[in-house]
Amino acid sequence: MSTTEQVLARIDATFEAAQGRWIDWLRIPSVSAQPKHAGDCRAAAEFARAELASMGFDATVRDTAGHPVVAAHHAGPGGDVPHLLYYGHYDVQPAEPFELWTYPPFEPTIVEGPHGKRVYARGAVDDKGQVQMWLSAFRAWFEETGTMPCRISVLIEGEEETGSVNFKPFVEANREEFNKADIIVISDTGMWDVDTPAISTSLRGMVYMEVTLKAASRDLHSGMYGGSALNPINALTAALGQLKNAEGRVMVPGYYDGVRDISSRQSNQWSALGFSEEKFLGDIGLTEHYGEKGRGALERLWARPTCDICGIWGGYAGPGTKTVIAAEAGAKVSFRLVPGQDPAKVVEGFKAFMQARVPKDAKLVFTVLGQGNGLEIPIDSPFVQMASTVLEEEYGKAAVLTGCGGSIPVVETFQTVLGLDSLLVGFGLDDDQVHSPNEKFEVTCFRHGLRSHARLLGKIGGK
Amino acid sequence: MSTTEQVLARIDATFEAAQGRWIDWLRIPSVSAQPKHAGDCRAAAEFARAELASMGFDATVRDTAGHPVVAAHHAGPGGDVPHLLYYGHYDVQPAEPFELWTYPPFEPTIVEGPHGKRVYARGAVDDKGQVQMWLSAFRAWFEETGTMPCRISVLIEGEEETGSVNFKPFVEANREEFNKADIIVISDTGMWDVDTPAISTSLRGMVYMEVTLKAASRDLHSGMYGGSALNPINALTAALGQLKNAEGRVMVPGYYDGVRDISSRQSNQWSALGFSEEKFLGDIGLTEHYGEKGRGALERLWARPTCDICGIWGGYAGPGTKTVIAAEAGAKVSFRLVPGQDPAKVVEGFKAFMQARVPKDAKLVFTVLGQGNGLEIPIDSPFVQMASTVLEEEYGKAAVLTGCGGSIPVVETFQTVLGLDSLLVGFGLDDDQVHSPNEKFEVTCFRHGLRSHARLLGKIGGK
Repeated sequence: MSTTEQVLARIDATFEAAQGRWIDWLRIPSVSAQPKHAGDCRAAAEFARAELASMGFDATVRDTAGHPVVAAHHAGPGGDVPHLLYYGHYDVQPAEPFELWTYPPFEPTIVEGPHGKRVYARGAVDDKGQVQMWLSAFRAWFEETGTMPCRISVLIEGEEETGSVNFKPFVEANREEFNKADIIVISDTGMWDVDTPAISTSLRGMVYMEVTLKAASRDLHSGMYGGSALNPINALTAALGQLKNAEGRVMVPGYYDGVRDISSRQSNQWSALGFSEEKFLGDIGLTEHYGEKGRGALERLWARPTCDICGIWGGYAGPGTKTVIAAEAGAKVSFRLVPGQDPAKVVEGFKAFMQARVPKDAKLVFTVLGQGNGLEIPIDSPFVQMASTVLEEEYGKAAVLTGCGGSIPVVETFQTVLGLDSLLVGFGLDDDQVHSPNEKFEVTCFRHGLRSHARLLGKIGGK
Repeated sequence: MSTTEQVLARIDATFEAAQGRWIDWLRIPSVSAQPKHAGDCRAAAEFARAELASMGFDATVRDTAGHPVVAAHHAGPGGDVPHLLYYGHYDVQPAEPFELWTYPPFEPTIVEGPHGKRVYARGAVDDKGQVQMWLSAFRAWFEETGTMPCRISVLIEGEEETGSVNFKPFVEANREEFNKADIIVISDTGMWDVDTPAISTSLRGMVYMEVTLKAASRDLHSGMYGGSALNPINALTAALGQLKNAEGRVMVPGYYDGVRDISSRQSNQWSALGFSEEKFLGDIGLTEHYGEKGRGALERLWARPTCDICGIWGGYAGPGTKTVIAAEAGAKVSFRLVPGQDPAKVVEGFKAFMQARVPKDAKLVFTVLGQGNGLEIPIDSPFVQMASTVLEEEYGKAAVLTGCGGSIPVVETFQTVLGLDSLLVGFGLDDDQVHSPNEKFEVTCFRHGLRSHARLLGKIGGK
């Protein structure tokens, strides 16, 4: 029995404990966007630090201008072993609207589902669940061998869900501490399906902006002023309503500059996956896609830029009527970007788009809340190859190389600041309801993910 | 000294008490739109009933399917005297957003302003302040003469701010009790300016609708689904954004059917008022009008229909970012109507407008929250003539005959159900911030309004 096999046996024997650590961490409502949860964010960081310290890591909670970063190092077994840098985040999305949760978001609940047990909680998968998989893989190696099979560094941040604004400066300020690694390992992506593992080799970037349109100096009576005064909601909808044309193209000037069509090889590979957009949309009650016309389904999800209004507000939204012309209205708009697009140009393009479409008295205020390039990950690195091998060993099925529609802006940070590529091996499923009410993670995904991480450590460490 | 002059002297001598009753009533947060204030609405009704009963009225609080109606009758001095029916409402608009109030909305605060003292509170003018003027005029006549100078009936409802949905059935069910009056008297409108009284002879009607656009069965991650799933906020803004064209015309099909251009006599009369739209808009921080191009300022405010989105909501509106595609989004839309437009056709037109502009998977849900015709009031009635006379006596200046941009749907109810015209004599000012934070009413307007009502009672009663 190889050491890796001994570690896997230990994982199976101690699985309840790993699940318990996962659930305990989920109880902490570490919502980074909401200032009232600042203490919870710190508690979630301290939870991870204590875990790492108990496995022989030199682990610290490090302050930033926002929520703290957990940083840790383990020298491994000594000798010339690879050096892996694991990245994850302990913060979670806001749980609102609470009333749509079947189970309380911060009281993790185990429920039987079609794939066996699953855990419902905010952060169940994104990203505490996925981080706890590799933390528990570390623990199994530590308990079985007293050390790690490789040299390992760890960074767990607390602001991924709010744009990682303080994480990049942190990495820049501590470049020398982390740039010795060979590769970054990140579990914040998904599987192809519950039986088929995946490695993500392309990632969309993002520009996330808030725009406020201010009109009169106060709220007005719509009877007294209607027909004369500028209505900011009418003006805002008139401008935002033009963001996409009838073909689903985003009308921001210069938006498609630098966007490349996918190669025929990529197109063929993705077609071969047999993705059913009908089922993908049918599962959420929709019958047809609303993306760009004339593009393939996976191409639209993985390799085309988008524009979604993520929130809008203004005037009276309570019960009954209020005959008011509001003083202002606002919206949050997210643009998913692909490699080749320049986020700074998208920011300027959106500002110009809005300015050109609002009346003279409309004062626009823009805030950039997040900004990151789309990225491609080289698929020929030995780490991608080793990951493919261990995933096939664990699942008995080859891993598919996919794109990822979501953004992981830190992947860009690691490339530009540390000069390191990232290995994106994640275990979420499409129906995990990430960022929605009733987020969940399958226990079987957690278990195989944990075992896959343990296998990867053994493979890379030569055990 | 005529009896009317004695009553006016008594009003001046007891003015503090009248102001005290006004302020006490304002302390009751009778917000009809918010179910939590149902008890307060009843308390505000009981306050008015007790006042009327103390002046010899047969006064009752009468239940409806919603908030109750105060109904009262006084036979007057006997003999063949005119019979006046006073109408008002004790309910107020929601005070949200509370943080924009300089003084608490339900703790009336007296502050010195450019016209002397003013009272800040929700309902200060609309309509508790205006109703208290005629209640205090009744009291002065009662204290001076032991009776009223005319036969008087009273109806004070509690759902004017939510569309008077239960008031019309109430009037229909009690038609015989109220249809003997000669005229309705209503103070829920404004003056031309602080020195110039006004009688409103035209009123805009209203259709107020809520529309909800439902897309996917749950909130979605904008990275995973962006480029494929229908976004209800994008779809809603795309449709609502087309409600007006570049000329400010409302694009709902058939919207202008039945709308008549104003007469040249009306146009000349209104031009002669010297209304400065530049100042009207400048006072609220705007530089130009956003109504229909090619129409006069007062024509747009009084005699043209409008469309204002009064509220919009959807997705995440909290601090920071949430990368979500919401399951639904909604808006409240108000249409101000003029005589000739059919509210039912506007309702159907708006539904058709929206249905024609949303994608196939968008499910639209409409709710009609208010509906009433625009109206014209005959200016040759003896009551309008008598009101003009007493206003000129009180102010030393002729009353102007204006339109009113707002809606008083009960005026239509009184015409259709009771066959009675309404005399609209109000004392609000344009800057009273009706329906906004920091609503106020000038004490000088309250005082002259009270005295004008006392004069009107004397004139009509022949005293």
